[in-house]
Amino acid sequence: MSSLPSASAERVQDLVDANHILHHQGIVDGFGHVSVRHDADASRFLLARNMAPARVQAADILEYAVATGEALMPKPPRLYLERYIHSEIYKARPDVTAVVHNHSPAVLPFCIARGARLRPVCHMAGFLGGAQHHDGPALFEIRDHAGPASDLLIRSRELGAALARTLADARVVLMRGHGCTVVADSLPVAVFRAVYTEVNARLLLQALPLGEVDALTPEEADATRITNEGQAARPWELWREQARQAQRERGPA
Amino acid sequence: MSSLPSASAERVQDLVDANHILHHQGIVDGFGHVSVRHDADASRFLLARNMAPARVQAADILEYAVATGEALMPKPPRLYLERYIHSEIYKARPDVTAVVHNHSPAVLPFCIARGARLRPVCHMAGFLGGAQHHDGPALFEIRDHAGPASDLLIRSRELGAALARTLADARVVLMRGHGCTVVADSLPVAVFRAVYTEVNARLLLQALPLGEVDALTPEEADATRITNEGQAARPWELWREQARQAQRERGPA
Amino acid sequence: MSSLPSASAERVQDLVDANHILHHQGIVDGFGHVSVRHDADASRFLLARNMAPARVQAADILEYAVATGEALMPKPPRLYLERYIHSEIYKARPDVTAVVHNHSPAVLPFCIARGARLRPVCHMAGFLGGAQHHDGPALFEIRDHAGPASDLLIRSRELGAALARTLADARVVLMRGHGCTVVADSLPVAVFRAVYTEVNARLLLQALPLGEVDALTPEEADATRITNEGQAARPWELWREQARQAQRERGPA
Amino acid sequence: MSSLPSASAERVQDLVDANHILHHQGIVDGFGHVSVRHDADASRFLLARNMAPARVQAADILEYAVATGEALMPKPPRLYLERYIHSEIYKARPDVTAVVHNHSPAVLPFCIARGARLRPVCHMAGFLGGAQHHDGPALFEIRDHAGPASDLLIRSRELGAALARTLADARVVLMRGHGCTVVADSLPVAVFRAVYTEVNARLLLQALPLGEVDALTPEEADATRITNEGQAARPWELWREQARQAQRERGPA
Repeated sequence: MSSLPSASAERVQDLVDANHILHHQGIVDGFGHVSVRHDADASRFLLARNMAPARVQAADILEYAVATGEALMPKPPRLYLERYIHSEIYKARPDVTAVVHNHSPAVLPFCIARGARLRPVCHMAGFLGGAQHHDGPALFEIRDHAGPASDLLIRSRELGAALARTLADARVVLMRGHGCTVVADSLPVAVFRAVYTEVNARLLLQALPLGEVDALTPEEADATRITNEGQAARPWELWREQARQAQRERGPA
Repeated sequence: MSSLPSASAERVQDLVDANHILHHQGIVDGFGHVSVRHDADASRFLLARNMAPARVQAADILEYAVATGEALMPKPPRLYLERYIHSEIYKARPDVTAVVHNHSPAVLPFCIARGARLRPVCHMAGFLGGAQHHDGPALFEIRDHAGPASDLLIRSRELGAALARTLADARVVLMRGHGCTVVADSLPVAVFRAVYTEVNARLLLQALPLGEVDALTPEEADATRITNEGQAARPWELWREQARQAQRERGPA
Repeated sequence: MSSLPSASAERVQDLVDANHILHHQGIVDGFGHVSVRHDADASRFLLARNMAPARVQAADILEYAVATGEALMPKPPRLYLERYIHSEIYKARPDVTAVVHNHSPAVLPFCIARGARLRPVCHMAGFLGGAQHHDGPALFEIRDHAGPASDLLIRSRELGAALARTLADARVVLMRGHGCTVVADSLPVAVFRAVYTEVNARLLLQALPLGEVDALTPEEADATRITNEGQAARPWELWREQARQAQRERGPA
Repeated sequence: MSSLPSASAERVQDLVDANHILHHQGIVDGFGHVSVRHDADASRFLLARNMAPARVQAADILEYAVATGEALMPKPPRLYLERYIHSEIYKARPDVTAVVHNHSPAVLPFCIARGARLRPVCHMAGFLGGAQHHDGPALFEIRDHAGPASDLLIRSRELGAALARTLADARVVLMRGHGCTVVADSLPVAVFRAVYTEVNARLLLQALPLGEVDALTPEEADATRITNEGQAARPWELWREQARQAQRERGPA
């Protein structure tokens, strides 16, 4: 292990902040996880050990192999059962730098009601659609891969690979009865997309009973995504400040 | 009384924490209560005196007899009117170690609308269903036992026994116009189930208007329950930390 | 003024606490008000000057005449425009000791949608119904008294008297497009009823889309009211502790 | 620049407070902005540089020209892309002193569902209607001006002018898939209107499923607007106190 280059302290700190932001924004509760690709070695990624995101500190961040989804250390502590979500997406998608998996509360209804589509309806969530993704994120049905008696978790490389295939070249994939997984080429944009996936879902839940919904056109979705994600630093800095304040207030456990 | 073995300080502290967690998570307000079986004598259980859960401290925890539901002390302070919920369930269910009774806000609609079923729709709430409980928790209709003019409270051993019969071997029982009662073989799992019963109810309230709901299969419910409850320590530690922080911030009353 | 007996310091403090509790519980925002009858002279009542409830301190509490709704002092500060809600109810209802007027957020939909009835559906809100009030609170339509171009406010003794007639011998009256008014024979019970009117409305909003609603029978409503209001000190003490903590955290303005 | 009269320190401070209030009240998140007309020169207005409203301090407030929407300084920092919302409304509406643009969460559904109208249904939101605006705010459809592939932003003087034409002489204009813009003759009233537009939207979302909605008559809308906005100082003082407390708690970034 000592021969491997270390991830930069900045990247580790960004991942700690991302954990706290996602908790403070209500995107994860005691469960859910976020990872980032190693900045000196694309065959590795960083992810906490098995613990609640709000409690993650730098010392809890471990290195994992993209190839296997396993921690790159002897006798690792308890790991997230679903670390293969991360490893298999990094394997299938060289363009991806960060992955968020969560049970985002307003998104779940779209993972539960048959036929409901999480189309982008506000300009902050153009990333949900676009020319390649007219109807919003695809739904991963684990019964198609693990049968009708699974525990719904992505607990193997095979299931991770199947999830990555359903994600394909999109930015978000819904998981039936479970949650969603969000990817991006940076941590701030992945966090931005996770938060605004939730916001868009909340809006859609409220708009659907009012009448026919006017979703973004594919071209609007692409144009708003490019514009707004160019400003992802703005909410990231606000959310980081808020999350760090919440951490300071936590005091000694 | 002096001849009885005392409950361990750890168990009393866990019960104090459980009271505060349930309040901090929004599962109880000024009303609701949580108990745990005595760790040295299965014929007794621990429950606070009549007070809001958020304000319970170790000195407020009393011992009660499973046989009678009464406090094991001379001249007890004011007790919860519904302590027989706890005593009769401990009597009927030797496997139960902890009982939560609450007016959980998203669960109540399923105790009010005729025919609505609280089926498990997300993998964190498999305990609501399973092979023995296809349609989710049963509904206890107190009119069947106390007539059409009761105050809806479980204020006698007889009504407690009737509630325990409706609960049967399940983990949650709904109470018409009133709330629900949740049981488990440990305090962390009982609190976990109380919180995720609320989460599942919230999801179902939002999913039902979207279309046909895809509930967990009985086999999925059992499998997810076993997996997720094996991780109940993770949210318990987070929630306890948050609840203790909130208690520290309360300062002197 | 100096010849009038002063209200007790305890009653004034209770009214300050009631203002803060109603704000902390989300029942009032910048608007709304709460009053209590003078404890030494039933022909007077106590109410703050025109200000947001969260900011009321003892020095802001004024005495008013039940007969006129006017402050019993020369050159009073700015008063609430709707103080006649209070005076006319105290005049019509000798049994009433405390009055809350608010724009409670989940109650308003029942003041907006024609034909919607705020029936009691949970045991904490039996006071909404009972043998004399089968269908829940009556709705005051100000157009019947002030025509179709009013500002909806109870800004005269005449309108206050009309509201009191619609309230009749009930505990809550809804006001179309405006809010509600809640009465009781003590401040803790008035606050209790204001909070649980909101809770019951929230539950009913969520239960109605699920199917036919099973409201409390009139007999259940009366029985639950008697039982639960006998425990009104429990939430009052919790809410007061929380509201006082929030006041301490406010620090200097 | 040195020859221009400076805006008063009070006006700058009011604008800082307005930024923080809108964030604290949940009307803006990391995005959205608020401006005020210069108090010594009606051809200029004050608006922060490109940043989250919660983080704006006095040093971040810049002067802009109404004529162009550009900052009146050499080498300005990064500016809001949509500053033309403000400049073109100030140009078209000499009566307007303050402008709020936001993505108010309960308002967005009315910008998404075709045919839904945000009519005033409670007396705090009479400004949404009135004799000239029977059906509530108009909806600006950017496709009518920028075609079906825009990023939905008001990123030019032309689009700002088109938005101002849709606003016409109203107080609120909805923007399809995007948010809303609110104007008034003072900052406290603009903030009041932004908050109660959200409140009214929330009420309407909950009332619509209950039955036919009883909106304010045009005459009621005008009368309630005049009365309630005469009391706008009351919530402004409360909200400012709360927002300043939140700022103090933020501590060093």
